Amino acid sequence: MKKHNFNAGPSILPREVIEKTAQAVLDFNGSGLSVLEISHRSKDFEVVMNETVALFKELLNIPEGYSVLFLGGGASMQFCMIPFNLFEKKAAFLNTGVWANKAMKEAKGFGEVVEVASSKDANYTFIPKDYVIPTDADYFHITTNNTIYGTEILTDIDSPVPLIADMSSDIFSRPMDVSKYGLIYGGAQKNLAPAGLTFVIVKDELLGKVSRYIPTMLNYKTHIADGSMFNTPPVLPIYSALETLRLLKANGGLAEMEKRNIAKAELLYNAIDNSKIFVGTAAKEDRSRMNICFVMKPEYKELEADFQKFASERGMVGIKGHRSVGGFRASTYNALPIESVQALVDCMQEFEKLKA
Amino acid sequence: MKKHNFNAGPSILPREVIEKTAQAVLDFNGSGLSVLEISHRSKDFEVVMNETVALFKELLNIPEGYSVLFLGGGASMQFCMIPFNLFEKKAAFLNTGVWANKAMKEAKGFGEVVEVASSKDANYTFIPKDYVIPTDADYFHITTNNTIYGTEILTDIDSPVPLIADMSSDIFSRPMDVSKYGLIYGGAQKNLAPAGLTFVIVKDELLGKVSRYIPTMLNYKTHIADGSMFNTPPVLPIYSALETLRLLKANGGLAEMEKRNIAKAELLYNAIDNSKIFVGTAAKEDRSRMNICFVMKPEYKELEADFQKFASERGMVGIKGHRSVGGFRASTYNALPIESVQALVDCMQEFEKLKA
Repeated sequence: MKKHNFNAGPSILPREVIEKTAQAVLDFNGSGLSVLEISHRSKDFEVVMNETVALFKELLNIPEGYSVLFLGGGASMQFCMIPFNLFEKKAAFLNTGVWANKAMKEAKGFGEVVEVASSKDANYTFIPKDYVIPTDADYFHITTNNTIYGTEILTDIDSPVPLIADMSSDIFSRPMDVSKYGLIYGGAQKNLAPAGLTFVIVKDELLGKVSRYIPTMLNYKTHIADGSMFNTPPVLPIYSALETLRLLKANGGLAEMEKRNIAKAELLYNAIDNSKIFVGTAAKEDRSRMNICFVMKPEYKELEADFQKFASERGMVGIKGHRSVGGFRASTYNALPIESVQALVDCMQEFEKLKA
Repeated sequence: MKKHNFNAGPSILPREVIEKTAQAVLDFNGSGLSVLEISHRSKDFEVVMNETVALFKELLNIPEGYSVLFLGGGASMQFCMIPFNLFEKKAAFLNTGVWANKAMKEAKGFGEVVEVASSKDANYTFIPKDYVIPTDADYFHITTNNTIYGTEILTDIDSPVPLIADMSSDIFSRPMDVSKYGLIYGGAQKNLAPAGLTFVIVKDELLGKVSRYIPTMLNYKTHIADGSMFNTPPVLPIYSALETLRLLKANGGLAEMEKRNIAKAELLYNAIDNSKIFVGTAAKEDRSRMNICFVMKPEYKELEADFQKFASERGMVGIKGHRSVGGFRASTYNALPIESVQALVDCMQEFEKLKA
């Protein structure tokens, strides 16, 4: 049976990327060696690293003066690395959910943290909008896509202080204006590569200004100086990222990707909005294109387990909602084809006909 | 042409592990999904994680009271993570080379560092032996195998304070007494798995004693509490590690591995010692079984580039010595078959016949 992979992360990758990665595991570039056993200092891998950085810059239209880094440790490591490098006295945060909270919690170890706004009281079903960013903050931190709640900041907001964005789950999903950000970071395991890789896009001029001692591995300058090769980088995920970016470019880049993501999201949100039994959980104006959350209407609540089973029997994988929201979550990342969304919609409508 | 992979790291992995990994990239456990796109919280991956930890404990005979962790960031990240967790006032180090120095440098950011002995003046060609470990140190740090210089500490030394060992390049190469150590760590990309995975074996009772604030991701307790699943772990390298450990167990465990490693090292060291043109660089009593370093004798120095080319044309990969030692380095990790060592020895003898 064909599987439709709606996992929230690690999540679906393009089949071409998976097949090219498997081939490189068996034999990298016809070298007679696996990509798992080559030196990261070899010429062949240097080419991979350089092209990956170049495609990052080209596809995201990254201006001069920014560095692109590939690190280990996950986005969670950035929650402390960012304050180590940029936090002198005060940092401001927009509280849009669990991940924003984790970033905020770490920053509290370094100084004064200001929460400019929060949608916590509404279980993070919307993105707060009327807030004031303190102009004396070292930076303002946002989480652009909130995987658990299915909300997303779809515009590049203006900030009077350096804007820092966790884009783990929506990087490369739409064209964006990188110049509005001081630092963008994320785990690669949604739209880019397998787990084990973290990307950081940082405006160089922001660095070197804090007074504290920064451990070598936590200092962005270390990794900038050595082109992400200060120590052994996660070789395989970088290779897979390169294949993803090559494909993205061949398929029309971020403008085309956004078009496809809008089409997929509209297809599923329309099905939810026209359903008698399902209902979306996020405020319509803040709906994510990457994670679409929905539950059963109160009068059909007892059918949730039934639908989970029904969908699972039809090849739907990973649609159980996060425990703090319940119900269902379909993650519709770049690599998910619209055919999978259609299969889920068909499944929802078939179930509704049978049960409602 | 058959390639013989003597890379220092990332380095050769068993062909079975490479093939099983490639298969899992295409289809993991017959799930219809790639190991690159499964959730780390899925039941299938939970099984992988649990078995990997269990085999670590079984093969290394790890006593009760120790935790095994799988992290990202590389051994270099441990250079600061260890002091964050264990350094209160003073730490002692044995200086056996570049990597020992890097660990020592990071620790200096946290308090008083004592270098108990160093072989720096001899370009680290031997392991210092007559030294006194200060009994008031929080810990004593060693680098058991020094990849650059080809020296190795082959016994589990006695220390009056917790012994911490970077075993990046010799873990699983011999049976050992883990109970003599407080913490053992390393990058996985030599004897275990592809790049992107770091292992830590830590004695639980040592933790929670320092007074500083430890950022969440840098706190071992975070990862112990969540079984290395506090955030998304490097899924693929953990899967490959599992396959390596399964094979290690099937092949007789660490006693058999040590026998094979001794046989490989003796074969190559004997060829070096009986050569007219090559000479080993490390003190005989401290020779590494993992990285075998040799140069041309002074009177044949000008033949080095010739031999590099000659060997390369015969399928030898990665035998160039580190720039700080020069000459040649053959890394003979667990996965390297003795046939590859024999091929190198044949190549050396053939060259010698032609040129000397």
